[in-house]
Amino acid sequence: MAEPLFKRLALIGIGLIGSSVARIAKDRGDLAAEIVVNARTQKTLDRVVELGFADRVEIDPAKAVAGADCVMLCAPVGAFAALAKAIGLHLMPGAVLTDVGSTKQSVIRDVGPFVPAGVHFVPAHPIAGTEYSGPDSGFTTLFQGRWTLLTPPPGTDTASVEKIAELWRRCGAMVESMEPAHHDRVLAIVSHLPHLIAFSICHTADGLADESRQEVLNFAASGFRDFTRIAASDPVMWRDIFLNNREALLEMLSRFMEDAQGLARAIRWGDAEYIENMVEQGRKIRRSLIEIKQA
Amino acid sequence: MAEPLFKRLALIGIGLIGSSVARIAKDRGDLAAEIVVNARTQKTLDRVVELGFADRVEIDPAKAVAGADCVMLCAPVGAFAALAKAIGLHLMPGAVLTDVGSTKQSVIRDVGPFVPAGVHFVPAHPIAGTEYSGPDSGFTTLFQGRWTLLTPPPGTDTASVEKIAELWRRCGAMVESMEPAHHDRVLAIVSHLPHLIAFSICHTADGLADESRQEVLNFAASGFRDFTRIAASDPVMWRDIFLNNREALLEMLSRFMEDAQGLARAIRWGDAEYIENMVEQGRKIRRSLIEIKQA
Repeated sequence: MAEPLFKRLALIGIGLIGSSVARIAKDRGDLAAEIVVNARTQKTLDRVVELGFADRVEIDPAKAVAGADCVMLCAPVGAFAALAKAIGLHLMPGAVLTDVGSTKQSVIRDVGPFVPAGVHFVPAHPIAGTEYSGPDSGFTTLFQGRWTLLTPPPGTDTASVEKIAELWRRCGAMVESMEPAHHDRVLAIVSHLPHLIAFSICHTADGLADESRQEVLNFAASGFRDFTRIAASDPVMWRDIFLNNREALLEMLSRFMEDAQGLARAIRWGDAEYIENMVEQGRKIRRSLIEIKQA
Repeated sequence: MAEPLFKRLALIGIGLIGSSVARIAKDRGDLAAEIVVNARTQKTLDRVVELGFADRVEIDPAKAVAGADCVMLCAPVGAFAALAKAIGLHLMPGAVLTDVGSTKQSVIRDVGPFVPAGVHFVPAHPIAGTEYSGPDSGFTTLFQGRWTLLTPPPGTDTASVEKIAELWRRCGAMVESMEPAHHDRVLAIVSHLPHLIAFSICHTADGLADESRQEVLNFAASGFRDFTRIAASDPVMWRDIFLNNREALLEMLSRFMEDAQGLARAIRWGDAEYIENMVEQGRKIRRSLIEIKQA
């Protein structure tokens, strides 16, 4: 076994991502020698103790980070400003502070001001997930073959960036660095907009007359079902992502609306060629995905 | 083995649905004593001969239906008017004419006028599919546990309706009858709108700058991927569905747009509660689907 990367890893928040990291850390032994878990409620911490992947649980985030040479924020991004404020002064000099949030500009905006000199802040985003949440939902293979994007601000200590990169590689992920603004645009189209659409269409279906609603459920296999899987995700996490990637998300939604309206107009006016071209494009993208084995 | 339902089944068109029915008919032996397959091109028919699920292939639809006591239209719905015109006068007295199209009002509009007195027209829609098409794509379990909806016009011969229902039950499907207009509205929301959205978002992603486009492919696992599966479907089939369920589809799109814009507005103005409620609704629908085992 390789030397553990960190002496003490403090996980602030223990949902799908946090509890997957904890399970991997426990299993492999080479992420950190000790795992401390913090959560908002004692109930969650009690469950974490039962699940057995933490060496210690701690309800006070300031106490959880004390003495930790790696602190990973795994809460919904909307909680980051308050958490950073609560832990900032308690971070150990030389510690690496990282996170797993899906919006990187907001994280840098919210957390950055509370990072003391001598603490190294390495924002990160493991692009992996399921529709499940909470400490029971994690599993050790969640990050296998998936990407983790690092968005370190200019001037970030390179040794710290490399340690976080290595942590994610040991979790099974492929690692790449990216500008925070670029990250937020890419994620807006590949993840945030699809989720916004999925939530919206569920809402639309739910708004139909009662009889039709039952039929939506009966006949969901014909396409609707694929949208509901991603619509089953955690409401607080998604509320926070939407609010914290507002500009990029609204821009991508606006582009999507133009495209959908273009297709609607072609349908209204019977423009068969336009429709066929648009459908053909969808197939091309799918084929590319299959070629690079992401589908 | 039960008595075959029909003496001769003529399949007009041999894509995913048609070739699945043919495979089931060949395997079970109790759908029809003889299977005749018609397709637009000799190349497809040559492939059908190789695949071995037809007793006879026939490039002329009029000849294909001659002597058949069951004729099933399995082509894209946009081809139905021309096909009905080509076969109408060659249908055997007492024969049952049915179809598998995804839009039922248009099928009744396009096929109905060409059905001679004494021929029984039973429109049907097996709600099953994959993103693959063509005679190679069919398989015998496609309809297992899925619904087939029958939309017989008032006054249709009940014995013929029952024979088509039994044919689909023998294919593994659950069968229900529905008003054609109601069918088209339900399918607009569960299938046609999700496909329209999936094609549109692929188009949107494809329209981004080159660099972002590659990243869409790399990071598709985070939600986008679920949309591309259904966007990989056959362009001609979908063009025809969109054009032939125009009113219901545009209404559902309009409702969806309102919901998406409502969510966008909440994001713009930071209305956290509105967003959470909408996301919560998506989860509820997903849970209902899991309860009735359609997910």
